[in-house]
Amino acid sequence: MLWIQINRALDIPLNKQVYQQIREKILNGTLQGGERLASTRKLCSELNVSRNVILEAYEQLVAEGFLVSYRGSGTFVVDGALLTQSSKVPSKKRTEEKIEEPKIDFRSGIPALDLFPRKTWAKLSHHIWNDTQPIHFGYDLPEGRFELRDVLANYLLRTRGVECHPDQIVITSGATQALTIVARLLLSANDMAIMEDPITKDIQTIFTSSGASIYSIPVDQSGMMTSLLPQDQQPKFIFITPSHQFPLGGALPIHRRIQLINYVRQKKCYLVEDDYDSEFRYEGPPISSLQGLDPNYVLYVGSFSKILSPALRIGYLVLPIDLVEKCRQLKWFSDLHTPSIDQLILARFIKDGYLERHIAKMKKYYKNNRDFLIDCLQTTFSNNIKILGYSTGLHLVVELQNINFSNAMLEKIEQFGVKVYPVEEHAIIKGNHNNQIILGFGHLKKEDIQEGVTRLFQAIFDQ
Amino acid sequence: MLWIQINRALDIPLNKQVYQQIREKILNGTLQGGERLASTRKLCSELNVSRNVILEAYEQLVAEGFLVSYRGSGTFVVDGALLTQSSKVPSKKRTEEKIEEPKIDFRSGIPALDLFPRKTWAKLSHHIWNDTQPIHFGYDLPEGRFELRDVLANYLLRTRGVECHPDQIVITSGATQALTIVARLLLSANDMAIMEDPITKDIQTIFTSSGASIYSIPVDQSGMMTSLLPQDQQPKFIFITPSHQFPLGGALPIHRRIQLINYVRQKKCYLVEDDYDSEFRYEGPPISSLQGLDPNYVLYVGSFSKILSPALRIGYLVLPIDLVEKCRQLKWFSDLHTPSIDQLILARFIKDGYLERHIAKMKKYYKNNRDFLIDCLQTTFSNNIKILGYSTGLHLVVELQNINFSNAMLEKIEQFGVKVYPVEEHAIIKGNHNNQIILGFGHLKKEDIQEGVTRLFQAIFDQ
Repeated sequence: MLWIQINRALDIPLNKQVYQQIREKILNGTLQGGERLASTRKLCSELNVSRNVILEAYEQLVAEGFLVSYRGSGTFVVDGALLTQSSKVPSKKRTEEKIEEPKIDFRSGIPALDLFPRKTWAKLSHHIWNDTQPIHFGYDLPEGRFELRDVLANYLLRTRGVECHPDQIVITSGATQALTIVARLLLSANDMAIMEDPITKDIQTIFTSSGASIYSIPVDQSGMMTSLLPQDQQPKFIFITPSHQFPLGGALPIHRRIQLINYVRQKKCYLVEDDYDSEFRYEGPPISSLQGLDPNYVLYVGSFSKILSPALRIGYLVLPIDLVEKCRQLKWFSDLHTPSIDQLILARFIKDGYLERHIAKMKKYYKNNRDFLIDCLQTTFSNNIKILGYSTGLHLVVELQNINFSNAMLEKIEQFGVKVYPVEEHAIIKGNHNNQIILGFGHLKKEDIQEGVTRLFQAIFDQ
Repeated sequence: MLWIQINRALDIPLNKQVYQQIREKILNGTLQGGERLASTRKLCSELNVSRNVILEAYEQLVAEGFLVSYRGSGTFVVDGALLTQSSKVPSKKRTEEKIEEPKIDFRSGIPALDLFPRKTWAKLSHHIWNDTQPIHFGYDLPEGRFELRDVLANYLLRTRGVECHPDQIVITSGATQALTIVARLLLSANDMAIMEDPITKDIQTIFTSSGASIYSIPVDQSGMMTSLLPQDQQPKFIFITPSHQFPLGGALPIHRRIQLINYVRQKKCYLVEDDYDSEFRYEGPPISSLQGLDPNYVLYVGSFSKILSPALRIGYLVLPIDLVEKCRQLKWFSDLHTPSIDQLILARFIKDGYLERHIAKMKKYYKNNRDFLIDCLQTTFSNNIKILGYSTGLHLVVELQNINFSNAMLEKIEQFGVKVYPVEEHAIIKGNHNNQIILGFGHLKKEDIQEGVTRLFQAIFDQ
């Protein structure tokens, strides 16, 4: 029995050392089925450990079925515990993926992360984790905390004209999950949904992954060209970004909204309104929601990613009443519910007025960034440039005559230390947006904006 | 123009009052397309407000497309902004659903919520929200924070014998999401998965919702009866709870584990190991994981719901390397990633040793509850009862001879102020578990356990 090595220098309890070595020897066949082990008395004296060490190791091995004990006759290795090792290759160590951070990244939709109200959030967080009722540490309902849905219904009515009762809200883990749930709620294979073209690539992927097809309608500077809504089609829903079209930036005027409402009423389908950053409208208060025009036909999707932080992963769906129950079930089978205490912290943050103060502050900050970016672009590119969709949000679109933002061009721009995002990536019908790029400005410092625009110009015009 | 009512007593800005009333009149047709509005000068003097109030209201209405301004000729209502109101019924107010709390609820799988380490968590939470790098408030990678995956890989190796590199871990929003991702990763319509019978009802629902079928294998007191693994079938995976079968409570012995490993190697399919509460094994350290026997064939699912709090919604998947990339994509299109700061707090909680101390403390507490429940059951029911699956976790199973836990019986028990959960609810092939109920004991006080068992006896035997 001298093949068991006790090493007192290790930070592993002695019974665990004995257990591990016997286990390994059974699995690899050194100890074979039917073989009788030394008695605990004998083994403890051989290894010079207390008898409890051996007893505990044997007990664990019996519990796991490696050994069997017969009173009076001893302890034996069971049959069938041999595992051939051939295919147990060592884990290939993948190296931790580094997102290569280009020096100046005009990625859209990222708020100014260093202005996240961390002190207030930390204070509320400390307070709520300390003082909330124990029941909030348990399983919760799929629709989310009433405290949050209540302040949210109020906030949405006041700032966005969204009309709903808190019971029509389901809190989601970000807008992405809301859209995934919408897809499962409304789409089956062979169904069809209408979308703006161009529109966020990831959302196209989410809707088509169920086997549904997309009918695309082009957008102009005022959003979806609703005169092109097809009479001979039966969509399940129309997905739309009416307050701030992504990526082109238009705001849908009221007569197009009315056309949409009339269309879905006639077709008995739904509008899915994605309202991702309309709080930041720079020349006035936000455009009112489509939802408020007819809450029975609109699913309204919102998120705290742009107005607070994407890391929170909190979004929500406002639903017509008859869809609420099925949505609750889909949420339950996705992840039961969104983390409860995070919801309570956010509810308090809104209720105490911090959210609206933060938005007001950030709106000034982003407007300043936007104005500076437009200045830089106009000064640097002078007449070559058209700037679109800058009235709202955290990005704008730049159109350059006779320039094709091909992969080669984008790579060249990256070689100049700048990352920009082609509109074409989000196009459904390809080929119409090759001369347009998206520039996000929310998260960038002025010196980076200045430098980025200069380098962009140099890369494009080979200076 | 006297039809606009200004109410200075309201908490609504005057420009918003003007905006809302004109908007409503256009939508309902009181103001019709082509109609010319009073000039801002005239309207402000009529309403006795400053001209800015009217200018701002008009500007917002122009921005939203309700009005159009022609320099020199005035401001007009656009055509097509009339919305028929017929179908805009008022939102039906659902009453807030109250979960009726029965007096004593033996629901399984709920930790002792009042013992959640809230002070430590609040302290770490405050610290991390205050001090973490701003980048952590942004979008993150789908697999989750490296800080958490790193300590987790270490913890799992040490306590559960799980062998993995942090890159093989994907952090999920609880184990439910992990299982939803597993279903999408491995199952298509017409595929088949093998499951224990009985097994958690919700997990059956998750796996069959993709159109896949279930091949069930009965469990005995040692878990899945692996001798019944079908040779003539080609499953995509075997779902198994080897450390603590749910609900019957068996621990799978090593020779059955070897059979499983050999079977999936031969069939080139996977084992999905759900290890939901094995930390709480009362007569020794946890049973080692199946994953450690062959990491190339096992997807290991874990959760912090039982050892910490379900409200956190943090779980994880440990995957064979070749499945990691597809899993990352599925996570991305589910909800991008799990909330970042929550992950950082948990990582610190584990790294600083709080988790293992908490588990040790809770294990004593739960063992005490369990022993007390067994005592109460044996005293109250004497010889009528068989108690199963009590070696591990937060529940046990009670079997009563000649008793059928029918709906009528369960309702009667509820009338006695007690809620218990039939094993039959989780049965795939019905009819074999009518005399068994699940009793969770983790979250109950001793007086409730005592009282609950007494009432249960009274309800069953009509005393």
